[in-house]
Amino acid sequence: MNEIELHKLLQGKIRVNHAMEVTQETLKLLYTPGVANVALECANDPSKTFEYTRRKKLVAVVSDGSAVLGLGNIGPYGALPVMEGKAMLFKQFGDLDAIPICLSTQDTNEIVKIVSNLEPNFGGINLEDISAPRCFEILKTLDEKLRIPVFHDDQQGTAVVVVAGLLNALNLAGKRIEDVKIVVNGIGAAGYNIVKLLFEFGARHVIPCDVHGIINVNNALHKYHLEIAQLCGTLKLSGTLREALDHADVFIGVSKGNLIGPDEIKRMNRNPIVFALANPVPEIDPIEAWRAGAFIVATGRSDYPNQINNLLAFPGIMRFAVENQLKIDNRVLKLATEILANSIKPKVDEVLPKAFERWTHEYLYFELTKNFRMT
Amino acid sequence: MNEIELHKLLQGKIRVNHAMEVTQETLKLLYTPGVANVALECANDPSKTFEYTRRKKLVAVVSDGSAVLGLGNIGPYGALPVMEGKAMLFKQFGDLDAIPICLSTQDTNEIVKIVSNLEPNFGGINLEDISAPRCFEILKTLDEKLRIPVFHDDQQGTAVVVVAGLLNALNLAGKRIEDVKIVVNGIGAAGYNIVKLLFEFGARHVIPCDVHGIINVNNALHKYHLEIAQLCGTLKLSGTLREALDHADVFIGVSKGNLIGPDEIKRMNRNPIVFALANPVPEIDPIEAWRAGAFIVATGRSDYPNQINNLLAFPGIMRFAVENQLKIDNRVLKLATEILANSIKPKVDEVLPKAFERWTHEYLYFELTKNFRMT
Repeated sequence: MNEIELHKLLQGKIRVNHAMEVTQETLKLLYTPGVANVALECANDPSKTFEYTRRKKLVAVVSDGSAVLGLGNIGPYGALPVMEGKAMLFKQFGDLDAIPICLSTQDTNEIVKIVSNLEPNFGGINLEDISAPRCFEILKTLDEKLRIPVFHDDQQGTAVVVVAGLLNALNLAGKRIEDVKIVVNGIGAAGYNIVKLLFEFGARHVIPCDVHGIINVNNALHKYHLEIAQLCGTLKLSGTLREALDHADVFIGVSKGNLIGPDEIKRMNRNPIVFALANPVPEIDPIEAWRAGAFIVATGRSDYPNQINNLLAFPGIMRFAVENQLKIDNRVLKLATEILANSIKPKVDEVLPKAFERWTHEYLYFELTKNFRMT
Repeated sequence: MNEIELHKLLQGKIRVNHAMEVTQETLKLLYTPGVANVALECANDPSKTFEYTRRKKLVAVVSDGSAVLGLGNIGPYGALPVMEGKAMLFKQFGDLDAIPICLSTQDTNEIVKIVSNLEPNFGGINLEDISAPRCFEILKTLDEKLRIPVFHDDQQGTAVVVVAGLLNALNLAGKRIEDVKIVVNGIGAAGYNIVKLLFEFGARHVIPCDVHGIINVNNALHKYHLEIAQLCGTLKLSGTLREALDHADVFIGVSKGNLIGPDEIKRMNRNPIVFALANPVPEIDPIEAWRAGAFIVATGRSDYPNQINNLLAFPGIMRFAVENQLKIDNRVLKLATEILANSIKPKVDEVLPKAFERWTHEYLYFELTKNFRMT
């Protein structure tokens, strides 16, 4: 069976059910006239909605379809089956109820307005597949404006998983994050947050690159590029990606396929770590990278060792944030990264745990909650 | 157990589940990379979302909390447990997946904009508990603007159930709708649509009343009042509700409790039909109405005979409209009214079928679908 046939057969990857079959008697409590008292309590104290309704578990998977998978701007109808898939994963791995909210508008202010007006229904917002740099503004504004947690998986979730994998890879290579030179290629939703999280972990030598090479004051495409160049100290530095890789210890590609070859790997320091995460075609073929001397190679693909998979992080982080009604700030992201890295004894062909083992998600959720209850 | 305890225990009246437990293999079809093909097909042909996603069954129960039950404007948090209850009923009686969408805004244009931008996710929109006259504008605009069916239960659903009950009551009283004088008191969401539907069925003598008596050019509160006065020919007619009831055959109250007494009933024609539908307190106590000579009395309450219950209509109508992707126009409403009326052999204490019998809903859905497939 192919993907089209399976989708037709399933008739949707989620179901909305009633929690119980109501009778004429229970209807009087669950609907009119009894629900009036419940409604009044919720109106007087909105936090009661977390006690009396499904809001406590309900997540909106919000997209405007502007950057769906690797397909680009295909709009809300194209986004729908993807967001429904995400909702399915939230249930299976995060014990959360989630529904797709695909919007017909791509106007940043309007998206913020709509999601704000939808807040009363949800316990959390998961943004998804919204193009950079628009997604930075949307996440920041919603995070400030809403009381419920807001998460952008392509930004924060990816950063957590990539950096967790890198921490374990550096450990295996016997290198300290403070000492290594890290090249991050592609400063979009993922790259922007990866760079920031690297600094949270003490990185001191990060070179951000994009299509025009090292990002500096002259080639920055927007203020978020400038922010990253400022943070990394490359405002006045220029050079190609190839030049940036000279004596680098780590390459993190979140860009596009077939960008570098064995030659670039050979220019890197001893025991190079190569995270070629572009999907479906990595920045360098993993086999080629190994042959050229890479110590650890990771990709976004499940058919090679070391898959860097967002699925490892978002269910546990969102479950923690929604159930405890806590914002997802740098402290949460840093802690999630540490928990994820520490949840496995890493090997060169297994720097992260398997996404399909249920305990991985339970562990992340449980450890996050435990830690925040203690502090 | 009271309503608060039951709500706490249930932790929400709906659940969002995944349609199947995915494995590493099926994930490749249902999510990345396989879903990319599904996404592209949906982007190229949005109607495919009805084949490949849950959209085909998904209904948004939209409210701004401006007129919740009899509680008035209690806002979106107060509305949430009510809309969740409605979603629960949609599943149990209409086999539809439904979720509450309670909005923080009460701006008419903004509500239209938000719902329009949410269209890609849903197979239908059920508006609920939005105050009149705002709800008229919102329903009309959305119905014109969206491709999916839009329904406002407080307007259209109530009209269908009331008129179906009335058709059977008139039948029992041996009167023809063309001949009788009908007083409708309360020209809000329900009353406005009841009057219009009465004319669809051939009524010729309808007197619309509101707090200021018979609605005319001087006391009309807004253009929808004027439209109704025009339709009924009362633009230049004045008088109290009491006067309007002189020699009336039918009283339909969708207003507020304790408005009329035995005296008003005695002014009516022989075999008066009294639909005192205000909730929880009817316009006249049913016992008093019977004692004063009413032939048939109906209320909105389940503890008297002849409950006029919206639950009889909305699941079947919406299921029909969503599954066939047809707009809910006058033709649909008129047909639904006829089907509902004909689904029972009426008695003076049972003018409509019981809402808790599953076949009632299946019958309405099935007959509507059959009829529209034939024409």
